[in-house]
Amino acid sequence: MNEFELIARLTRDLPTNAGVVVGPGDDCAVLDLGLSGRWVLFKTDAVVEGVHFLPAAPPEKIGHKALARCLSDVAAMAGEPHSAVVTLALPPNFDPARIEAVYAGMNALARRHGVAIVGGETVTNPERMLISVALLGTVEQGKVVRRAGARPGDALFVTGELGGSILGRHLEFEPRLAEARWLAGHFALHAMIDLSDGLAGDLRHVLAASGVGAELLADAIPISRAAREHARSHTAAKPPLAAALTDGEDFELLFAVASRDAVPLLDAWKAQFPALRLSCIGKVTAGHTLLLRDRAGANPLDLHGYAHFTQP
Amino acid sequence: MNEFELIARLTRDLPTNAGVVVGPGDDCAVLDLGLSGRWVLFKTDAVVEGVHFLPAAPPEKIGHKALARCLSDVAAMAGEPHSAVVTLALPPNFDPARIEAVYAGMNALARRHGVAIVGGETVTNPERMLISVALLGTVEQGKVVRRAGARPGDALFVTGELGGSILGRHLEFEPRLAEARWLAGHFALHAMIDLSDGLAGDLRHVLAASGVGAELLADAIPISRAAREHARSHTAAKPPLAAALTDGEDFELLFAVASRDAVPLLDAWKAQFPALRLSCIGKVTAGHTLLLRDRAGANPLDLHGYAHFTQP
Repeated sequence: MNEFELIARLTRDLPTNAGVVVGPGDDCAVLDLGLSGRWVLFKTDAVVEGVHFLPAAPPEKIGHKALARCLSDVAAMAGEPHSAVVTLALPPNFDPARIEAVYAGMNALARRHGVAIVGGETVTNPERMLISVALLGTVEQGKVVRRAGARPGDALFVTGELGGSILGRHLEFEPRLAEARWLAGHFALHAMIDLSDGLAGDLRHVLAASGVGAELLADAIPISRAAREHARSHTAAKPPLAAALTDGEDFELLFAVASRDAVPLLDAWKAQFPALRLSCIGKVTAGHTLLLRDRAGANPLDLHGYAHFTQP
Repeated sequence: MNEFELIARLTRDLPTNAGVVVGPGDDCAVLDLGLSGRWVLFKTDAVVEGVHFLPAAPPEKIGHKALARCLSDVAAMAGEPHSAVVTLALPPNFDPARIEAVYAGMNALARRHGVAIVGGETVTNPERMLISVALLGTVEQGKVVRRAGARPGDALFVTGELGGSILGRHLEFEPRLAEARWLAGHFALHAMIDLSDGLAGDLRHVLAASGVGAELLADAIPISRAAREHARSHTAAKPPLAAALTDGEDFELLFAVASRDAVPLLDAWKAQFPALRLSCIGKVTAGHTLLLRDRAGANPLDLHGYAHFTQP
């Protein structure tokens, strides 16, 4: 049983209440707590030593990553982050200076985005460090961008470059909060997700939530330099395109807009964010298949994204 | 370095923002998100296999405990819980039926208190299960009860009976949400905390936050049957009074009210909650010492509560 099968079983019958606008299954939950004109976003995420970072990773980057993952989910809903609480699970022989450096990395990122860290819990996890962050944000009522909502004919866009995040980016990425809010403020985004499990896997989440298919253009997928260099120097590595499609932890934004918005959006983006690549990578189609078009034609894409654990 | 020393170092310089009413250091953080007349409560807590529960513990009770601990913190602020997100860290060879039972226990408790479970994250923690829960609640603006606020002369009360929780209660306790809201609705509570680290330890948190001392009456401390039976059957066990003062995980409420409210409160409590003991256990004093008065007189209390980890 893999992560997604387990989640499907656990989320079949969860308790809900009248304040829930969007429950489990999107990047964040959306709550109506009675704020005038705004909804609350609520999200949790965790990183584990030896799974999401190596024991030798610089501690500031571990703290940065722990918070940045949650911030990326708030970005994916076009929201504004507000405050966070942190569960810190540590072996009993922890090094206090290392933990302070973890927090220094987390705090620096929080300050850049106006996020308050308002509480925490420390527990013993004897074998390894684990950091779970829960984040609150807000979003203008009715302006939240979900995974559901992509329509046949829409253009699909992705920010940045994909693949090879494991070579460094996964510990250093800056969540696309400003970019997402600018996009949602200027264009009618039909659907959005942040790329944590890889383009192929996360696009499938959008397609399933929206009840549609898609056709990707192989030549349009933005492949990172890291993915290319890794493929060149390791004969057993994935080809660069496969890395861009399936490597996890890109933490870029994938979104769908009406095709008529595609060109104006690209032009306005270049003026607003000249340093960050934005690529139109394909289109949304009727039906439920995910196709990849290359020089040989359009064929079903068999590659999947990263699953966090699998059980035989 | 123990838990409290680490927390003191980490919370010296945390990022904050204009929405934070109460930051780290109380049972919950209190946030002003702009709700009309209400503040938001935000809390996280975690349980770890082999630390907070044994591997053989009934899975429903593990899930119950994971959520109940957070609910108890919302009770301690006299708040109303709203929704939760859950980080579930699991070894790769987990038993899906056991995890579903964990959720069944958590869901049943959530339903009883109107709490929605709106999201989660599953990660690998190779050696043991860990569950971190983050909870949102609300409280009437200005009606939140903090740890700070106890005044010399106040009467100190505790609900229920203390000690010996490890024999079973720690997996089964019902958070005192209704009791706390009734108390805050009918009396001016000066300070409140839920007992997670033991009466002596948690009372010290209230005294430090309030800048006061206290005198406890040994004969008035309500000792649980479990603590008495454990002491009788184990020659190496703590005496029952020491267990009631220092055992962790009672999850009862400890609060301070003006002495003139003590008798009316006890009378009204007996009418409202006839099945749940309420004990006046002593009084708040000027100064900073914690005294225990027994037949030999009043002496400084040297016993401390439970610290979650210590480092040589």
